[in-house]
Amino acid sequence: MTHTAAAYATHAADKPLELYAIKRRELGDQDIAIDILYCGVCHSDLHTARNEWGNTLYPCIPGHEIIGTVTAVGRDVKSFKVGDTVGVGCMVDSCGHCSACKTGEENYCEHGFIMTYNSALSENTHTFGGYSTKIVVAEKFVFHIPHQTNLAAVAPLLCAGITMYSPLRHWKIDSGKKVGIVGLGGLGHMGVKLAHAMGAYVVLFTTSASKIADGKSLGADEVVISKDPDQMATQVNSLDFILNTVAVPHNLDTYLNLLKRDGTMCLVGAPATPHPSPEAFNLIAKRRSLAGSLIGGLRETQEMLNFCADHDITCDIEMIAMEDINQAYERMLKNDVKYRFVIDMQTLRDKEK
Amino acid sequence: MTHTAAAYATHAADKPLELYAIKRRELGDQDIAIDILYCGVCHSDLHTARNEWGNTLYPCIPGHEIIGTVTAVGRDVKSFKVGDTVGVGCMVDSCGHCSACKTGEENYCEHGFIMTYNSALSENTHTFGGYSTKIVVAEKFVFHIPHQTNLAAVAPLLCAGITMYSPLRHWKIDSGKKVGIVGLGGLGHMGVKLAHAMGAYVVLFTTSASKIADGKSLGADEVVISKDPDQMATQVNSLDFILNTVAVPHNLDTYLNLLKRDGTMCLVGAPATPHPSPEAFNLIAKRRSLAGSLIGGLRETQEMLNFCADHDITCDIEMIAMEDINQAYERMLKNDVKYRFVIDMQTLRDKEK
Repeated sequence: MTHTAAAYATHAADKPLELYAIKRRELGDQDIAIDILYCGVCHSDLHTARNEWGNTLYPCIPGHEIIGTVTAVGRDVKSFKVGDTVGVGCMVDSCGHCSACKTGEENYCEHGFIMTYNSALSENTHTFGGYSTKIVVAEKFVFHIPHQTNLAAVAPLLCAGITMYSPLRHWKIDSGKKVGIVGLGGLGHMGVKLAHAMGAYVVLFTTSASKIADGKSLGADEVVISKDPDQMATQVNSLDFILNTVAVPHNLDTYLNLLKRDGTMCLVGAPATPHPSPEAFNLIAKRRSLAGSLIGGLRETQEMLNFCADHDITCDIEMIAMEDINQAYERMLKNDVKYRFVIDMQTLRDKEK
Repeated sequence: MTHTAAAYATHAADKPLELYAIKRRELGDQDIAIDILYCGVCHSDLHTARNEWGNTLYPCIPGHEIIGTVTAVGRDVKSFKVGDTVGVGCMVDSCGHCSACKTGEENYCEHGFIMTYNSALSENTHTFGGYSTKIVVAEKFVFHIPHQTNLAAVAPLLCAGITMYSPLRHWKIDSGKKVGIVGLGGLGHMGVKLAHAMGAYVVLFTTSASKIADGKSLGADEVVISKDPDQMATQVNSLDFILNTVAVPHNLDTYLNLLKRDGTMCLVGAPATPHPSPEAFNLIAKRRSLAGSLIGGLRETQEMLNFCADHDITCDIEMIAMEDINQAYERMLKNDVKYRFVIDMQTLRDKEK
């Protein structure tokens, strides 16, 4: 088999993504070779392509919401066979022996996990992500996809889904809990679906009145317009947990005040400049916590995929061709997507021919 | 018996405290009348006397670290008798029926507990604190003092002690935990003693090299000079819990970075202006939490007093006469106290004669 693959790469922060030929590594004993079918478009892709976090290695090939078909397995691979439908998320390696890795929380690897794209592998090489026809990944970092249909809409579960699922599980959300989801985008719409499926009473907070109907149809019991102080006042001291997906600086106190005693607000997005500082007294007065969470571990990601299949949960997506990616980025910046773009990788494979 | 008592009050933010005669309420069926022996001097006393939080009701009589002797009990009082040594802390009443009160967390009463001083009782009356010869308090808010000696040094346990004890218990500190205490003042020195007595490995963070010896003798296993980046670097990702007693704005990230995965930093002081905003990514990258805690409940306060008696723990104090209170406030502003002033109320009683 050949190791060459087509990809879409950018070579500098101010350049568009364009067709680029790469070589994937040869199949190791523990590796799985995958033909990529679909790849979701995460906001991190855009941040990295444009070097907005200042750490981008070029050429940059984003993509960490990958669904594909197994085309070959290394001799030690036990759980997968050729033809299986599989997923790859944000990680492709970790140290394997730190306290986080040992407890199945590779996402918190103390030596830093290897990201699916933009992680240095040597002085001159780094990982290339899923905007590509093929990828080779160690078995341990490959997931079984239990969904039978609608695979394109499964792709974003690998980042947006697990980023919501992990904190909801960590903070033990269930039918006794009232949960707030802040922001209805790629992450937030999955937060609403997952919290609802876990049995929680779900309150969606959005700045946009146009999202009320969508929020309710996704599973929100209430939709609160966060710009309206009267609506916000109805929620004071009532929420057990808030999952805040908004990654632009905003007033955290207006949400911390909505938490009950011992409630937690968990941030999943890091703004480029800090949020206005929260008032210490808003934490002290009710023993509230402000926390953060980063994707999820391998075991938990498989658990999430199984949970989503059991509850018939996928993402709401808009499919695009690979060549439309630069335009899709511009639309993402205007929040003009409901709620995740997914690239049909057949459109890239067609260019290879 | 007479209800008149001597007190020290201030009548305006810019006025000193001075001798003032008050009447305590008549003894109700559930009340306990107390002759005050000692009253600790908390930094909140100074904030309130000078209206630094903008909510002071004048005349203001501070003091919520009270040790005294029972002089009379109401007919329904069951647990105390005349002659008992008792304590009163930051609260003298709460609603009694909200979810916090029902679970013994009166300090988080949803209707707001009645503070020992500076809580409105009616349009024209408010509570007067422990800078006084006498007080009348409902039995439920009075504590048994198991210490046999050194009662003056027990007084600050009623605020400084419980403010440290409650979060250490809530976050389950024990011999398996590495705990940071930030700041060696009235609160911090109790945090060091209590965390040490609970079996934790204790790291004291202080800006002052002159406090190293004191910190170690109080029970710290290590003392880190927080202004020294090299010393701070040795603690990165190592602490399970940090109890931060510093109530002036400071960089929280330098401490959040010292927490392990899933670690929590708990604030107990609210600065007049917010801390510089912490970086969301410092929470996200290790699922850390920034929390707060406010004193403790009634049951837990009695538990703390028993724990301190069992472990022979009191505060390190400097005794002052009532008339020295204004000078003591000035010294507190210069951190010139090791580590808590306590007023010998006999010095006020002598003025009554």
